[in-house]
Amino acid sequence: MEDKKYIKLITSTEIAEYSNIKGFMILKPYGYKIWENIKKIINKMLIKNKYKNVNFPLLIPKNLFDLENKYIKTFSKECAIVTHTKLIVNKNNELIIDKNSKLNEVLIIRPTSETIIWNTFNKWIKSYRDLPILINQWCNIIRIEMRNKMLIRNSEFFWQEGHSAHINEKDALLEINKIKLLYKKLIKYYLSIPYISGYKTNKEKFSGAKFTYTFETITKNKGKFIQLATIHFLSKIFSKAFNVKYINKNNIEKYPYGTSCGISTRLIGALIMVHNDDHGLLLPPKIAPIQVIIIPIISNIKKKKKIINFIKFIKNNLKKKKIKVKYDNTSKTPGYKFYKYENMGVPIRITIGKNEINKNIIEITRRDTFKKKYLYLKKNLNKKILNILNRIQKNLYKIAKNNINKKTYKIDNYNEFKNRISTNCGLILSHWDNNTKTELKIQKETRATIRCIPIQKKFKEIGKCIYSGKKSNQRVVFGKSY
Amino acid sequence: MEDKKYIKLITSTEIAEYSNIKGFMILKPYGYKIWENIKKIINKMLIKNKYKNVNFPLLIPKNLFDLENKYIKTFSKECAIVTHTKLIVNKNNELIIDKNSKLNEVLIIRPTSETIIWNTFNKWIKSYRDLPILINQWCNIIRIEMRNKMLIRNSEFFWQEGHSAHINEKDALLEINKIKLLYKKLIKYYLSIPYISGYKTNKEKFSGAKFTYTFETITKNKGKFIQLATIHFLSKIFSKAFNVKYINKNNIEKYPYGTSCGISTRLIGALIMVHNDDHGLLLPPKIAPIQVIIIPIISNIKKKKKIINFIKFIKNNLKKKKIKVKYDNTSKTPGYKFYKYENMGVPIRITIGKNEINKNIIEITRRDTFKKKYLYLKKNLNKKILNILNRIQKNLYKIAKNNINKKTYKIDNYNEFKNRISTNCGLILSHWDNNTKTELKIQKETRATIRCIPIQKKFKEIGKCIYSGKKSNQRVVFGKSY
Repeated sequence: MEDKKYIKLITSTEIAEYSNIKGFMILKPYGYKIWENIKKIINKMLIKNKYKNVNFPLLIPKNLFDLENKYIKTFSKECAIVTHTKLIVNKNNELIIDKNSKLNEVLIIRPTSETIIWNTFNKWIKSYRDLPILINQWCNIIRIEMRNKMLIRNSEFFWQEGHSAHINEKDALLEINKIKLLYKKLIKYYLSIPYISGYKTNKEKFSGAKFTYTFETITKNKGKFIQLATIHFLSKIFSKAFNVKYINKNNIEKYPYGTSCGISTRLIGALIMVHNDDHGLLLPPKIAPIQVIIIPIISNIKKKKKIINFIKFIKNNLKKKKIKVKYDNTSKTPGYKFYKYENMGVPIRITIGKNEINKNIIEITRRDTFKKKYLYLKKNLNKKILNILNRIQKNLYKIAKNNINKKTYKIDNYNEFKNRISTNCGLILSHWDNNTKTELKIQKETRATIRCIPIQKKFKEIGKCIYSGKKSNQRVVFGKSY
Repeated sequence: MEDKKYIKLITSTEIAEYSNIKGFMILKPYGYKIWENIKKIINKMLIKNKYKNVNFPLLIPKNLFDLENKYIKTFSKECAIVTHTKLIVNKNNELIIDKNSKLNEVLIIRPTSETIIWNTFNKWIKSYRDLPILINQWCNIIRIEMRNKMLIRNSEFFWQEGHSAHINEKDALLEINKIKLLYKKLIKYYLSIPYISGYKTNKEKFSGAKFTYTFETITKNKGKFIQLATIHFLSKIFSKAFNVKYINKNNIEKYPYGTSCGISTRLIGALIMVHNDDHGLLLPPKIAPIQVIIIPIISNIKKKKKIINFIKFIKNNLKKKKIKVKYDNTSKTPGYKFYKYENMGVPIRITIGKNEINKNIIEITRRDTFKKKYLYLKKNLNKKILNILNRIQKNLYKIAKNNINKKTYKIDNYNEFKNRISTNCGLILSHWDNNTKTELKIQKETRATIRCIPIQKKFKEIGKCIYSGKKSNQRVVFGKSY
C-alpha cells in the first residue's frame, strides 16, 4: 500500500517518472527544482566551509578498483561496465557493436569517486603545505540495483560527494564534526525531517571507511528506514591504497587522513515519505518550488478583469519579498486547481474572488492544517505570509517528530522484537552485544538491520543483548529498510 | 606551438588537468567556477525563455538508436557501450567481470539525448494543448574522440542541451531565432568573443537535423576554428522516427516539429584560445571567478597591520557591490603573485603598500593594457572599479575582433586558397558551388572545411566556385578546425 501511494505521489505531482530502462528515472521540472533548491543550500554551506567544487571523470579504469580491492575487502560491485567504444552499421543497415573497439582496460561508471580522487591526490599532495584539501563534486552516480525504488534506490542518482585530506586524525575528525552540523541543519531546518544519527556497524559501514556516520529517518506510515546522509572517516585506508604521502614539517613522509560525505536525490524520496497526508504531498516552505499558489474564483465574468488586476498586484508584492508565488490562470476549475496544488504540497493557497475584492482581503489556506485565514491587504501582507510559511516549516517538523516518537519502541524481549518487526516496524531501541554474528543472525531471522549506533547519552545504559543475552553498554537502533 | 601554449595555460592556471584516462579531464576549482558562471548566465536566459530544467537518464538502450538509425543515416558512433553490470572477486582475489551480468540490451552512455527525449515525448505529447514543450538539461556527455584536445574535444564534456517540440514549422523556427539571440548575447557580451554564424552545409550538419545553425570563432594565433554553439532544426525527423503525434484543434493527427540547441565546456577552451597574450590568460570580467586581486606590498614590517586593515576595508567595500574580489595574503613574494594572477587572467590588480596608505590611494593595474592608475579612496571607488571592469570587458572584444578582421581573407583563386590554408589559416571567404562533392574534394586536397554559410547580406554576391568555377550566389566561410 505505502509503496503504491509513494509511486503515485511521485508521478502525479510530476516530480519524476519511470524511463524505459529499469532503475532509471526522468527527473521532471518540479522534482528538478526541489533538487536545485536542496543543492543551493548545501552548496552554499560547503563553500562557506572552504570546499571547492570540481569535476572528476565519469569513467574510472578498472585497474583503480583493482588497487582498491587489494586493500579494501569488496565482495562485488553492481556497476555499469564499459567494454566497447564504437557502434557501426553493418551490411543489413543494422547498428552493431564494433568488435574492434573492445577496450583493453574496461571502464566503470563511477559508483562513487574515492578511487579516482585518491589516485589524483597522489599528484596533488606532496607536502604538508598542500593540506588540507577540501573538494566537492555534484554528479550522477550509477549503481545497478536489483530492487529499485524511485528516488530512494535508483540505479542512477544525483548526489554531492565531498572529499577531504588532512595531515592528521584530529583534523579529519574535526572536519567530520563540521559536516555533521551542516547535514543536521539541512535535514532538520530546511527539510523539516526529524532524524536519528549515529555510527553504522562494521557490517553496515562503507567498506573503505574506518567508520561511517549516518542520518536516518522513517517513513510516515510503515515506519521503515531511509538513509538521509552519510559521512565516512577514511582514516589512512585510501592514502595507503593509492600510496598518497606528504612530507611533514620535520621532513618525514606521512600518510594523510581522509573523509568523504554525501547527500543525494534520495532526499526527495525521503521528503515524500515523511511529509504526506490523504491530500498528497506537503513540502517544507524552505525547499518548495512554489510557496504560494494564487487561484482566482471568477463567478461573475464582469469582475474578471478587476480580479486579475488584484491578483497581479498581490503576486508582484509577494515576489518583491522573494516569496515563490505562482498564479494559475488556466481555464481549469478552482476545484481541480485546489486538488492539484494540495497534491503537489504547495504550503499556502490564496483564493481571490469578488468577495475578496470588495472587502480588500485575501483568503489564505494552510496546506498543513487546512485552516483558513482572512488577511487585510494593507496590513503587512508580505510579513504575515512569511510568518505563516515559517510556522508551516516548523509544524511539518513537529508532525513528523510526533510520528517518529509514536513509532519508537524500547524492546528488551526477542519475541516482542520479532512481532514488532513483522508488523508496522518503526524505530526499535534494543540492546546488542556488539558482535557481527549476532547482527547477521537477527537479520536472517527478522530482516531487521541495525540502522545506527546513536552517540547521545540517553542511549547509554547497561543491558542485555536482545538475542544473545550478553552484556551491552547501550541501546542501538534496529529497523527495516524501505 | 599554439597547442603546447594552450595546454600549458589550462594546467598552469589550474582550470583543468589530464586524468589518467585518455580524453577525460579533471575540471579544477578555477575551471569549474568559470563553467558555473557561464551556466548561470545561460540558465537564467533559458528559464526566462520558458525552458524548464529536467534530467533524463545517462544510459540509453541501444534499441532507441536502432530506431533512429532507420530514419536517420548515421555511419558510426564513437560512444561508450555498457555491456555488463557486475564485478566480482575470483578465487585469486582478483576483480573480474561477472559474465552472468551480461546485458541482453546493451546501454549507450548518451552522446546526446534526442533519442531518449523523443521516445519520452511519445508519452508526453497527445494533444496540441501539450505543446510547445521546452526542456533543458545540464549534463555530462560521452563521445569517444580519437584526436583529443582538452576542453575543445574531450571524450567527456559538460553541456546544456535544450529540446523543444512545436505544433508547426513556424513556431519551431521562431524558437530557433530566440535561441540565436540568446547565444549571441552570451558569446558577444559575456564572453567577449567575436563570432561568425550561419548554416552548416549538409555534410557538416547534425545528421538528425534539417539544418544546423552554428556560431564559430578562430584561435588567436593560428586562426583555426572553434565551434561555440549550435542550434538544430529537427523538423519532423525525430517525431517520425519515434512516432510522436498530437491531435490538432480539428482532431487531425500531426507530427510536431522539433529543435535542439547546446553550448558546452568547450566555451572555456574558446575563451582561452581567444583571450591570451604573452603573460597568460585574459578573462572577460563578466565570467571571471576573480575580478579584482589585491596584493599587499609589505616592505616595512611595522606597517603590516595598518596595510592589512586598509586592504580589508577596501575588500569589504568592493564585496558590497558584488565585485568578485580576492585578497592574497600568502607569504609568497609580490612578484610571484603578479605573475600568478596575470597568468590566470584576473582583470584588475590592486597593490597596496605604505605609500598607498600614506596617500590614501590605491594602485590599479589593468590586465589587458597593463596601464596603471591611482585612485583616491574616497571618491566613488566602487563605481570606478566597475567602470574599469566594463571597459576591460569591451576592450577584450575589440582586441579579438581586430584579430579576426586581420585574419579574414577574401580569396577567389584556388592556388592562393591552398597557400593560405597551409600557412596560418584564418577565416577564408570564398565562393562555392553548393555541391557536396566539391566540398569533399577541397577538404581532401587542403584539409579545409566549410565552417558555415553566413546569412548576412554582405556575403551575398555572384561569383564563381573557387574549385569548380561554377556559379555561386554567396561567399561561404572556409577554415581549418582547431
